Amino acid sequence: MQFLDLILKKRDAKALTTDEIRFFVNSCVSGETADYQAAAMLMAIWFNGMNDRETSDLTLAMRDSGETVNLSGIDGIIADKHSTGGVADTTTLIAAPLAASCGVKIAKMSGRGLGHTGGTLDKLESIPGFSTAISMERFKQIVNTSGLAVIGQTKELVPADRLLYALRDVTGTVDNKSLIAASIMSKKLAAGSDVIILDVKTGNGSFLHDYQSALDVAELMVKIGKTAGKEVIALITDMNQPLGNAVGNALEVQEAIEILQGRYKGALADVAVELAANMAFKAEITDTIEDARILIAEKLATGRGLDSFASMIKEQGGNPEVVHNTSLLPSSSKIMEIQAEKSGTISHIETALIGKAALLLGAGRTKKEDPVDPAVGLWMKKRLGDQVESGETLIELHINNKKELNQVHQLIRQAVTVSNQQIQPPPLIYTTIT
Amino acid sequence: MQFLDLILKKRDAKALTTDEIRFFVNSCVSGETADYQAAAMLMAIWFNGMNDRETSDLTLAMRDSGETVNLSGIDGIIADKHSTGGVADTTTLIAAPLAASCGVKIAKMSGRGLGHTGGTLDKLESIPGFSTAISMERFKQIVNTSGLAVIGQTKELVPADRLLYALRDVTGTVDNKSLIAASIMSKKLAAGSDVIILDVKTGNGSFLHDYQSALDVAELMVKIGKTAGKEVIALITDMNQPLGNAVGNALEVQEAIEILQGRYKGALADVAVELAANMAFKAEITDTIEDARILIAEKLATGRGLDSFASMIKEQGGNPEVVHNTSLLPSSSKIMEIQAEKSGTISHIETALIGKAALLLGAGRTKKEDPVDPAVGLWMKKRLGDQVESGETLIELHINNKKELNQVHQLIRQAVTVSNQQIQPPPLIYTTIT
Repeated sequence: MQFLDLILKKRDAKALTTDEIRFFVNSCVSGETADYQAAAMLMAIWFNGMNDRETSDLTLAMRDSGETVNLSGIDGIIADKHSTGGVADTTTLIAAPLAASCGVKIAKMSGRGLGHTGGTLDKLESIPGFSTAISMERFKQIVNTSGLAVIGQTKELVPADRLLYALRDVTGTVDNKSLIAASIMSKKLAAGSDVIILDVKTGNGSFLHDYQSALDVAELMVKIGKTAGKEVIALITDMNQPLGNAVGNALEVQEAIEILQGRYKGALADVAVELAANMAFKAEITDTIEDARILIAEKLATGRGLDSFASMIKEQGGNPEVVHNTSLLPSSSKIMEIQAEKSGTISHIETALIGKAALLLGAGRTKKEDPVDPAVGLWMKKRLGDQVESGETLIELHINNKKELNQVHQLIRQAVTVSNQQIQPPPLIYTTIT
Repeated sequence: MQFLDLILKKRDAKALTTDEIRFFVNSCVSGETADYQAAAMLMAIWFNGMNDRETSDLTLAMRDSGETVNLSGIDGIIADKHSTGGVADTTTLIAAPLAASCGVKIAKMSGRGLGHTGGTLDKLESIPGFSTAISMERFKQIVNTSGLAVIGQTKELVPADRLLYALRDVTGTVDNKSLIAASIMSKKLAAGSDVIILDVKTGNGSFLHDYQSALDVAELMVKIGKTAGKEVIALITDMNQPLGNAVGNALEVQEAIEILQGRYKGALADVAVELAANMAFKAEITDTIEDARILIAEKLATGRGLDSFASMIKEQGGNPEVVHNTSLLPSSSKIMEIQAEKSGTISHIETALIGKAALLLGAGRTKKEDPVDPAVGLWMKKRLGDQVESGETLIELHINNKKELNQVHQLIRQAVTVSNQQIQPPPLIYTTIT
């Protein structure tokens, strides 16, 4: 098989066979196919697309390009959740403990934050002592005892995705639904869970800006997962404003804890509860999704989710006291407020800019090697549709380094629009794809 | 300027600016842009095309990517011709001496054969003693004394084309009219002539199979040439059968000499004469193309073209006696005939396969490093539309190595169709674009 022939075939809008797709993936990973040929293929796929069968074949070939996780030894049905990424998207820290408290087993592999979106590993590691660098055996043990554990993704998992994603990033071929779906699902399938709950974000803070793209990718991922024999559900949720109010690692842990304590409701709590309910339902804890919702609400009210979270923190070397006393989390040296310059309604939030502001404060990284400051970030005091008086606080900045402060101010002024326009806040959950 | 932004722009069907195209070419040559990014750009260009201004900009940026030839010191108007390549396409060896004999100055840079098409350098070097490895000074001197000289293309000329062509070749992006036109014209413009006569082939032995593609590329090249201040004409000529009858280096030199001796007419002679007339007319030797045709016919009849050819051979170290005695050329150890298996009309010739048969006999090369055997090749005894009796000779093989003979036989059987169908042979020259 000559790789050039495969490029020509895809360029001329023909479907690649299962064998051809496997050859594409394997020859890229082995180095037999040069990256310039892979780049040309990716651009041809960007233009001509892949049908569902090709996308499924691509996903499975990518899954099989490296090691896959063997979760045998964990008792019970194992569920995973995945978010396509956003700002203040802390659902894992709430949904996973809640589902675990119902008996769902959650063996979660997570990544670090990059660009304007945060990463679960960074958030958890802001808890004093918490370590995600644990062995696979220990990881499974914790899942059995605490119901949940979180580990970093190993290099051996889906090397094809690392390679292809790096190429897509620099060749303008990121935004193709088949390539997005295969990238996400190959990693989820390799991670070994039985149940996969997908949280597909849409809106100006997600990378699938328009609803139709999010729907297409979500439907494709559910189809791929089912073809691979998994229980899969996708929720399409809003990312036209930060989901939670906290943006930044320790701040997001604090907000998750406050929600698990039952101290307040809101968009983040609502989405997390719905995700947890879907995990419980698909893991056969309840017979219906309605029962699952009731069960999760009960666990939240009685603090059982908080207990599961504390248990995991303890097993992974962290200080479990943090769930009762969030002042044990790292905090910034200074808090500054940004006030509204006029009265009106919050009519638009450019979500990605809020993420970028937190990044500039030190909460995120632009390059993989960058360190993050766990303490810094920001706290949204107003949401879309809220009324605000001139001089009222819009956002609280948690600062350790004042270097980028001017730029942060500018970004936030640019991001938040106060106007006389009355707006209907967007729905939280657009639809569920089963 | 970020190269990724340029890829995205072209991917989204927007035109690149002059500066952006220059950055594309220069950053590829300097190595600043990785070849995988260049490959993605080439595929985006393949899909979305380039407008005429972009194509012109690309050509000029490529021309300026390396050295350009300074032909000052040559007295008179300097003309060049270029063929897009075909089988038995020996026009340069006939047209250039004829034009030179009228006073046109021809300072020709030529390439070697690759694949099923031959190269002028290989053909000339089959003349005992002939060398194309001469200094630029000596080259210009010979042009002044003999009216023509041929030199190999230097590595410093248009490095961008070498790089981009190599990438296009392995990424499925060869057949794009802007990329083809820019590749050819950048080299022609760098080679320094005042007049450029383009011979654009169409048909099954050319790489522009259909007429419309040939027309598009020809029109584009004429436009680019004029923008760059050159006198340019393009002829679209047929390549649905070998142009001459001889395929192979010494055999083609022999056929060219026989035509210059006035010994026979035919397709090759007719196309070469028309090219020579266009060179003479555009180099202002005559006032009209009609006068140029009459002048070239006279030079052919009186043997003045042959004299020019002999003069160049002598100056470039070859034995000029060859123009009177072609038996001085290398000859093969054996000649074999392939006969018609039935009577009928030659209704189809798959020209590329004829070229491939000659290649297998040793006349061409598949890799740049391969040696060629100057003596071997084949001689077509029948042309499209000719009647043939069963047992009559179709093709004469000139052989030194019998290893590939079975495959050669098969190729020729596959290439030449004898049927009851009466056909109208295709026209020689479809149109002229001025």
